[in-house]
Parts: sequence; C-alpha cells; structure tokens
Amino acid sequence: METAAVLPVAGIRLGSVAAGIRYKDRKDLVLIELAPGSTCAAVFTTNAFCAAPVIVAREHLAAGEPRYLLINSGNANAGTGQNGLRAARETCKSLAAAAGCAMSQVLPFSTGVIGVDLPTNVFAMAAPSALAALDEQGWQDAARAIMTTDTVPKLCSRQIEIDGKPVTVTGMSKGSGMIRPDMATMLAYVATDAAVPRPLLQKALGKAVAPSFNSITVDGDTSTNDACVLMATGASGVTITDDQFDLFAEAVTEVCMELARAIVRDGEGATKLVEVRVTSAASVDEARQVAYTIAHSPLVKTALFASDPNWGRILAAVGRAGLADLDLDAIRIWLDDVCIVSDGGRDPGYTEEAGQEVMNRSGFVIHVDLARGEAETTVLTCDLSFDYVKINAEYRT
Amino acid sequence: METAAVLPVAGIRLGSVAAGIRYKDRKDLVLIELAPGSTCAAVFTTNAFCAAPVIVAREHLAAGEPRYLLINSGNANAGTGQNGLRAARETCKSLAAAAGCAMSQVLPFSTGVIGVDLPTNVFAMAAPSALAALDEQGWQDAARAIMTTDTVPKLCSRQIEIDGKPVTVTGMSKGSGMIRPDMATMLAYVATDAAVPRPLLQKALGKAVAPSFNSITVDGDTSTNDACVLMATGASGVTITDDQFDLFAEAVTEVCMELARAIVRDGEGATKLVEVRVTSAASVDEARQVAYTIAHSPLVKTALFASDPNWGRILAAVGRAGLADLDLDAIRIWLDDVCIVSDGGRDPGYTEEAGQEVMNRSGFVIHVDLARGEAETTVLTCDLSFDYVKINAEYRT
Repeated sequence: METAAVLPVAGIRLGSVAAGIRYKDRKDLVLIELAPGSTCAAVFTTNAFCAAPVIVAREHLAAGEPRYLLINSGNANAGTGQNGLRAARETCKSLAAAAGCAMSQVLPFSTGVIGVDLPTNVFAMAAPSALAALDEQGWQDAARAIMTTDTVPKLCSRQIEIDGKPVTVTGMSKGSGMIRPDMATMLAYVATDAAVPRPLLQKALGKAVAPSFNSITVDGDTSTNDACVLMATGASGVTITDDQFDLFAEAVTEVCMELARAIVRDGEGATKLVEVRVTSAASVDEARQVAYTIAHSPLVKTALFASDPNWGRILAAVGRAGLADLDLDAIRIWLDDVCIVSDGGRDPGYTEEAGQEVMNRSGFVIHVDLARGEAETTVLTCDLSFDYVKINAEYRT
Repeated sequence: METAAVLPVAGIRLGSVAAGIRYKDRKDLVLIELAPGSTCAAVFTTNAFCAAPVIVAREHLAAGEPRYLLINSGNANAGTGQNGLRAARETCKSLAAAAGCAMSQVLPFSTGVIGVDLPTNVFAMAAPSALAALDEQGWQDAARAIMTTDTVPKLCSRQIEIDGKPVTVTGMSKGSGMIRPDMATMLAYVATDAAVPRPLLQKALGKAVAPSFNSITVDGDTSTNDACVLMATGASGVTITDDQFDLFAEAVTEVCMELARAIVRDGEGATKLVEVRVTSAASVDEARQVAYTIAHSPLVKTALFASDPNWGRILAAVGRAGLADLDLDAIRIWLDDVCIVSDGGRDPGYTEEAGQEVMNRSGFVIHVDLARGEAETTVLTCDLSFDYVKINAEYRT
C-alpha cells in the first residue's frame, strides 16, 4: 500500500510541512485546499468528550462550504477544555489570514496525545509554507504526515465513468485502532472531482462509512477525534444527481472500505485480519451486537493471535451478547467454510485439524448464523497480541 | 490467603479426590455433603449458552433441597449439546446410587475446557472414594481441587453472634477472570451453620453477589458455567428470621466480597487491583455502564499495567459510555485523592508526578463523579498485561 499509485483529484491540492508540534524531523501539518465552488460533507466521532477541533469543525461546516482543511498530528487537542476551543479557533484564524479567506472556511482536525495544550504559534509560523507547498500531487506526503503510530500510510483511488466522462475518487486515512495509544485516532479524507450537492454528498458519505469505518474495531475504544470528510470539487465537469447517485456512492464506499481494511490490517500489534459475519439475525442491531461481542472479546482475540481454533470462546461470546430467546440448537458457526458448531455443540463433522488449518490463515471469516431472521452484518477486526500490550503500555514512556 | 485458617461449618463435609478427568496427579473432583434439613440457594450464569451442569443443577434445585454438590474441574461440559446433558445427569445418578439418595438431590458443577465430552465413567469410579473422603475439615483441599488456572486457592470465613450464639459463614471460590482461558469459570460455595428458610437464603445471596461477584471483571467475558451457591445447615441451632436477616446477610456479603476480591487479585496476568467508583449518576444502571466501560477498556487496562497516568484514556472511556446529555464541564475524575479532570480538561492542580505516584501503587481507586444524580456503583478490575495475552494465547497449546 505504501507505494500505491493514487490519482490526484482536480480541484484538490495538499501541502505538508514540519511544524514541530510534537515530532522532530517529520512533517506533522497538512493543509488541504478545495477549489472555489467545492462542496464538503463530514461525519464525526460520537464520543461525548469530543475534541475541540471536532466542535469547531462542526460549527464551521454548518456556516458554509469550507476552502481549507487544516490537520495536525502529534496533539489531539482533546480534554483541553476552554483552552482547547480557543486554540482550535486560533489556528483557523491564522490560516485564514495567510490564505485570505474567512476563518469559518477553515476546518481544523487534530490527532495525537490527549490532554496537552495545543501550541498555536507554530501554526501561525507554518501557515505560509503550508500554502506554498500546496500541490495536486501532495496525497502521498499528506497521508504520511497525518500518521501517528500507524506503520504505513493509507491511500486508495477509484475511477468510474459517468455520462461518458471519468470521475475520480481518492482518499487517505490514518488510525490503527478505533483509538490509538494515548492518541485520538481515526481520520479519513476522501475527495472527488465530481460536482455533488451537499445533501447528496452527505448521503453518499453516510452510505460509505456504515460498512467501512463504522464496522471496524481494533480495541473497541472510540476516539475523541474521529472524523471522515468527503469533498467534491466538480472539476471533472460531471454533476451527480439522483440518477448517478448509486454509481457514485458505490465508488466512495469502495474507497472507504479499502481504507478501513487498511486501518485494521495496521491495527496495533495485529497479525490477522478477521471478518466477523453474523447472518439470519432478527435485526441489524442485534447482528452488530453479536458481531462486536465476538470482535471485542479478549479471549477470542488472544485465541486468534495464537491461531488456536478454540471455538468455545466464540460460542461463549455469542451466548453473552444479550439476545433474548436464542434458539441454541439452531445456531451454526463457521471458520471460513468449516462448520464448528451446530445443534448446541461441536458439529459432528468438525475436526481440530480442519479448524487449525483455517486459523493458520492470515485472514479468515468467523460466520455466525443466528437462524432467527433476515438481517446481517459484517465487522472487521484483528487479534490481540503481545505487541498490542507493548505498544499501549509503552507509548508515553 | 493460601494458608488462611478457615472455620469448618457444622453440617457441611467436603471430600476431594483425583478422578483423572483431565489433570494428572491432582485432585479434580469435589463432593460437598449437606446435613439433612439443610437449605440451599444459588445464582447461575446469564450466558445463553450455559453449560449442561447449570441446566441440570437448576432443575434439581427446583425439585427440592439438595444433599450433595458434585464439582469437577478440567472439563466445563459446556458446548456439548445433548451429550452434555446426558453426561451431567449420569454423574448425578452414579453419585446418588453410591450415596443412597435421589438423583435430584445432587447438584452438578463443572469448570474447565469448553466443548469436550465429559467422561462419566470416572465419576462412577470415584464416587465411593469421594464419599469416604468427606470431612468437615475438607475446605482447603476442596478449594485447591476446584482450581483451574488459578494460582492460589480462595477461602474466607466470618463468625458473627446471633441471639448470643456464634454463627459461622465460610466460603470458597475459583476463577481468575469472568471467564478463564478456554475455561468456564467462576464457582463459589458459601455455607453457614445457621438455619435459613430458602426464600431468606436466596435473598441474602442476591444481596451478597450484587456488590461482589457481579461487580468484578477481568476481561468482560461472562462464563458459561458461573455459579454461586449458599448453603445453610442449621447445625448452630440459630434460625435466621427477618429480625436477624440484615446481620446475617452482611456476613455473607463480606465473605463474598473477600472471595470476589481474591478472584480479581488472581486475575490472569494481573499486577494491580483497581476499584472503579462512579458517583453522582442518574441511575445505578448508568453508573455501571460508565464503570464497566472504563474497567473493560484495553487502553485503560494497558495504561494501568504500565503505571502510566494516561488519564486521557479514562476521559475517552467516559465519553464513549453512551450517556446522553453529559455535562462535560461538571464531571470530575480522581486517581485516589488526586483530581485529574475538572471543567472538561486537566484539573489546574494536577501534576504528572502526583498522578504517577498513585499509578505506582498496587491498588487504587479511579473515581468518576458524573454530577447528575445520587446513584453510585463500584466495580473491581485489574490491568491487562503481557501475561494475560500469554496465558490466553498459550493455554491449550
């Protein structure tokens, strides 16, 4: 993925500079410029203790269409109270002054350590060089500059044809868990050169994040800074209306799915990428409840790390997921195509060898059929390894 | 705790033998005999995939007062379908035949690996020697025989005076997490020589388990086999009525609290015992929601392991606990008596040194004041260490 070629998006320029916010000798400040007339949609964390930049970005987005996204790594500006809000606004103000736009046309984003005051002077000093660095080819640099403990930059492009013209969708993300060690986590920026009215853009983003960023978990800890932004410049000359919506939304979803998968694959200490699929549920809610109970279980996750086909732990997780009136004898569980549980116990055809063979794979599907309805869901997760504990125990020390 | 002197309970005899169920060269089968006229109350796991012995024990308890509890370690007889039910009944039957009682007067309990058929012939063979081994002094041996990956036996006694006469409450438990690696977990047996009608006995047990066994977590994984039994022989000549109930229930609660604390202290890989206290909540339910979100957060638990006063992780956990309309500026968080969060950010008086000093302790309190009501709760938990991953990744291999 590191060397993946990504397509630039006409109307989007990115500039990355080393502002010295926390890290030495690396770029930690990214400026994204949207051409005039672009539209922008976003979704943000549901964490009640959301970070100051999340609050300010929401306010500015409500005020109109943004011209700039200002993103820093190294400091989350979360848990910083009123100081944090002042700092987030201050960074937008200094960028607006240098760029000659309104302060409300700048959306701020931060990722990094929680509870440390954000130094605003470095933003003012770095603004001119960030503006000077703006470049349509700036995606690779930017994807690297927003990294915290990510081990690889995460980028993805799709090109589709609409009304005979090419439309590009390119995105980048950072994160290696729902929250990072001491950090505040997942950020994703996706842009297209189609023209898309904001309501349709927000609808496409909503469709795209549900099965992607909102269906992944490394450790179940939702970050205070999560944000995903979808930008549409219109530079391709193609306008998305209801007729082309599905095609467009599908391309956005594909980009988000690949970026989400990249996050779990780069999950802290992760050695395996596991899809938890729950089918024949009475509702999507209960399917998600079961899927997340499995995906968050430390016992399931350590068994995945050990490549141990210890299916009793999956069974116990299904049993404690809180669903009433489960028909235990009807539930079936598979590892890829190997049925491990049926009739309330070990499937007669199951062998430890067959289970072991699947568990040895670097990626596979845990499939639970609840036999009580038509709803289904899929959640992506990874294992819980020594390195997860190491990374999270040693991050600040 | 290993050498703690525990008081025998008149009317209760325990016999432990090596039946060879899974382990070599250790006792793995415990028989507890209740004197005729004893009463018995129990609470069981809420896991929908509860084990066969849980189903059978519930049935037999509903049929009348039991004379024997038959407990094995090494095999949970869970996830074993119809075979498991047959096996659990078979073990009761063979013990009943040897003891000369009705099959329904025997309650079966199992703890150990999930999904392996329980060998019933060893129970039949071991029944006579278990009966021959019955002894009022058998508590220490029994507490050791029910261990799986516990590192220490867990025992506790209290003696109170009621109507001028001594009443004894003695208990033992096993477990090192809500579920054990590949195991099915927590079992606790508490006995008294008071005479207690079953409704009062069940009421005392309900009061005792709420703040003890139902308020601890190592990894959030609820076992398929959890059970806690309270037995009353009446041998002391003291009868508990409504008048003495509170005094009696308090003694039972104290014993359960100490046994519960012993379980968390012996939690898999645990190096710290941490109390999560949530006060000024609108309801006990929401207090528990916040307390468990903190107590289950892998990021909080790895910070505890590292003795890292990384309070942003606690803040993020409170924020994602799902409470609507939190007044972020009113919430305060302490580590023991050190206030770390107020006014939506770091408390002005907080220093990293003060936080570090508390974190270095082997036990302390994380206290969250939600400033929105009168309800409160306390949950006991431990840290997430390298050894947790090691124990759970390597258990079966």
